[in-house]
Amino acid sequence: MKFEIKRERLVEGLNDVMKAVSSKTTIPILTGIKMDVSSDGMRLTGSDSDITIQTFIPAEEDGEQIIQVTDGGSIVLQAKVFGEIIRKLPTNEVEIEITGNFQTHIRSGKSEFHLIGLDAMDYPQLPDIQDDRLFTIPADLLKTINRETVFAVSSSETRPVLTGVHWEVKDGELICVATDSHRLARRKTKLETLPEGEYSVVIPGKSLTELNKILDDTSEAVEIVMTNQQVLFKSKHILFFSRLLEGNYPDTTRLIPAEYKTTVTVNGRSLLQAIDRASLLAREERNNVVRFSAKAGNEVEVSSNSPEVGKVEEQLQAQSIEGEELKISFSAKFMMDALKAIDGQDVVIQFTGAMRPFILKSALDDSILQLILPVRTY
Amino acid sequence: MKFEIKRERLVEGLNDVMKAVSSKTTIPILTGIKMDVSSDGMRLTGSDSDITIQTFIPAEEDGEQIIQVTDGGSIVLQAKVFGEIIRKLPTNEVEIEITGNFQTHIRSGKSEFHLIGLDAMDYPQLPDIQDDRLFTIPADLLKTINRETVFAVSSSETRPVLTGVHWEVKDGELICVATDSHRLARRKTKLETLPEGEYSVVIPGKSLTELNKILDDTSEAVEIVMTNQQVLFKSKHILFFSRLLEGNYPDTTRLIPAEYKTTVTVNGRSLLQAIDRASLLAREERNNVVRFSAKAGNEVEVSSNSPEVGKVEEQLQAQSIEGEELKISFSAKFMMDALKAIDGQDVVIQFTGAMRPFILKSALDDSILQLILPVRTY
Repeated sequence: MKFEIKRERLVEGLNDVMKAVSSKTTIPILTGIKMDVSSDGMRLTGSDSDITIQTFIPAEEDGEQIIQVTDGGSIVLQAKVFGEIIRKLPTNEVEIEITGNFQTHIRSGKSEFHLIGLDAMDYPQLPDIQDDRLFTIPADLLKTINRETVFAVSSSETRPVLTGVHWEVKDGELICVATDSHRLARRKTKLETLPEGEYSVVIPGKSLTELNKILDDTSEAVEIVMTNQQVLFKSKHILFFSRLLEGNYPDTTRLIPAEYKTTVTVNGRSLLQAIDRASLLAREERNNVVRFSAKAGNEVEVSSNSPEVGKVEEQLQAQSIEGEELKISFSAKFMMDALKAIDGQDVVIQFTGAMRPFILKSALDDSILQLILPVRTY
Repeated sequence: MKFEIKRERLVEGLNDVMKAVSSKTTIPILTGIKMDVSSDGMRLTGSDSDITIQTFIPAEEDGEQIIQVTDGGSIVLQAKVFGEIIRKLPTNEVEIEITGNFQTHIRSGKSEFHLIGLDAMDYPQLPDIQDDRLFTIPADLLKTINRETVFAVSSSETRPVLTGVHWEVKDGELICVATDSHRLARRKTKLETLPEGEYSVVIPGKSLTELNKILDDTSEAVEIVMTNQQVLFKSKHILFFSRLLEGNYPDTTRLIPAEYKTTVTVNGRSLLQAIDRASLLAREERNNVVRFSAKAGNEVEVSSNSPEVGKVEEQLQAQSIEGEELKISFSAKFMMDALKAIDGQDVVIQFTGAMRPFILKSALDDSILQLILPVRTY
């Protein structure tokens, strides 16, 4: 194996696949990055066995020669050292040559590195995913969906299935739900390309967080392929594989109240800032609970009291308050997460009583629903 | 005590003094910030007992009213909570009122906070420093001097005096020396304002690092006052006090060789990059030692060999090599620190032999001297 490659393109490719490589892996070869070079170009693979990222650097692009391949082949090189070497080489021209016993020679300007590689045959094979059951979502919309749901997954491993986001494709809609059993985030998205049949998978929250770091903020289509054990996200030059979580995702539709007694419409950003301030004192005592009252005269009060530190009161003018007056307490963090997901628009908050879950929606559309369980303090 | 203040100016002042406040302090009142308000303005004080920072916000500046004082007074408030509250208040107008029992009321827009303050009488008094023995250095030069020396202080507490930088004023010069006994950094600076007599103090490296964070990159004069236990740096609105280290600083002049057998002149930036790359493999094995050879034909080779990972060779063209050929090994980190302090200029490196300390200077002037002890490998 011998080729020359433009350093800056190799750096870009390594940055992408490196996100899947973990130094904590128990499978030694996964601390490496696999390079497969052929006359078409170079495929880079990084994996922590949960997530696998592949990127392809074409030998030629827009008439420009990026890789000059003398001999094709495959090798696995230690991700961290290899990445740092390539990043710090003195020129943009890099020559890589593999000789006997996986000896890897990296040359650039007057620098020469000799690394000991690993046999690419020992690198785990990627699952063979049939792409006959795919649908597409624009990259920026996919990132938004993840941003609106992933934060609500459980961080506890006691019910592993709750550490993932439930993706369901049904009736021309993608419904994504995350819950840690104290709060829930649901996002519905109409699909333009309708896949046949129904799908129901649970994708690890961590995978979707990593996916969001890799996707560009463009409207370019991302192809999504779901199988029984894996989901594949395909963008222009990147393949992102994630394993799926096993187990049945709980039916969450029953959690959402059907009737409401108090409906508050309020500016989301103002409420977020008021709760942020009210929670400054609550945070000190680590329970982080604030009180919320909907009063006559469309007045909202957010307050918190921390005997050791002090207390705070925030007044807020609501657009409207319909139904009964209400006092309720909840986690400031959960409320702030939910308001951030709704992102500064006017929000409609619907309550059924001080002890019952309440929901938040954007005043503009129904696609997002956030549900929070209150905390008993009154 | 009651006054109104512009939020943004209070935030600025808090940001400055907050740098001295440590949550790890064993003196509870030092987790707070002291505010002293009079008709002239507000003095803020933060301290971790090693470092004390004071800043003054004038009641009026350039005809603009910044503080409207109804009643003067003093209070100590929890630094972290108070800082976060002020940063997040909804408007630029902040009213602060202290009522009985150190009850502190903070109002802005429709937010109202009630904090429990502490008695300012319990806050440690600042040392009374006579400023009859002061000299001045421009802020940017002071920052440069610190940047060129502080990195070389010892991080080990076995010889506490070595965790500081030795500042000596003598013959119209300020001589700053730091050493961890494996390397040494020395910077000489001609002083324009000559203080009377000789001074010799040891300033904790940590204090100088914090000082550099606070000083602006301007040529504005900083007044420096040294006493037996404290040093005070005074800029426009900030007073920065640091305790001094006790104990005799070792005489380091004898460490510096008087004769040299090999003198290499080379571009500092190229050498820094070559050593950075050569150390990539050395780092993996944690000893971080690279080999350096000065050869005939003005050729420098930097290399390292790490049996587990691989090896690297870097060639470099020196401007000149005078004297004997030489092979020597040293810590890549120490060499990189020294080259960064000399900052990209051509450097002159003078060796006395593979087992003897060697020195680095800028090719342009003699003000900086860096000394490194080699590592025995050849």
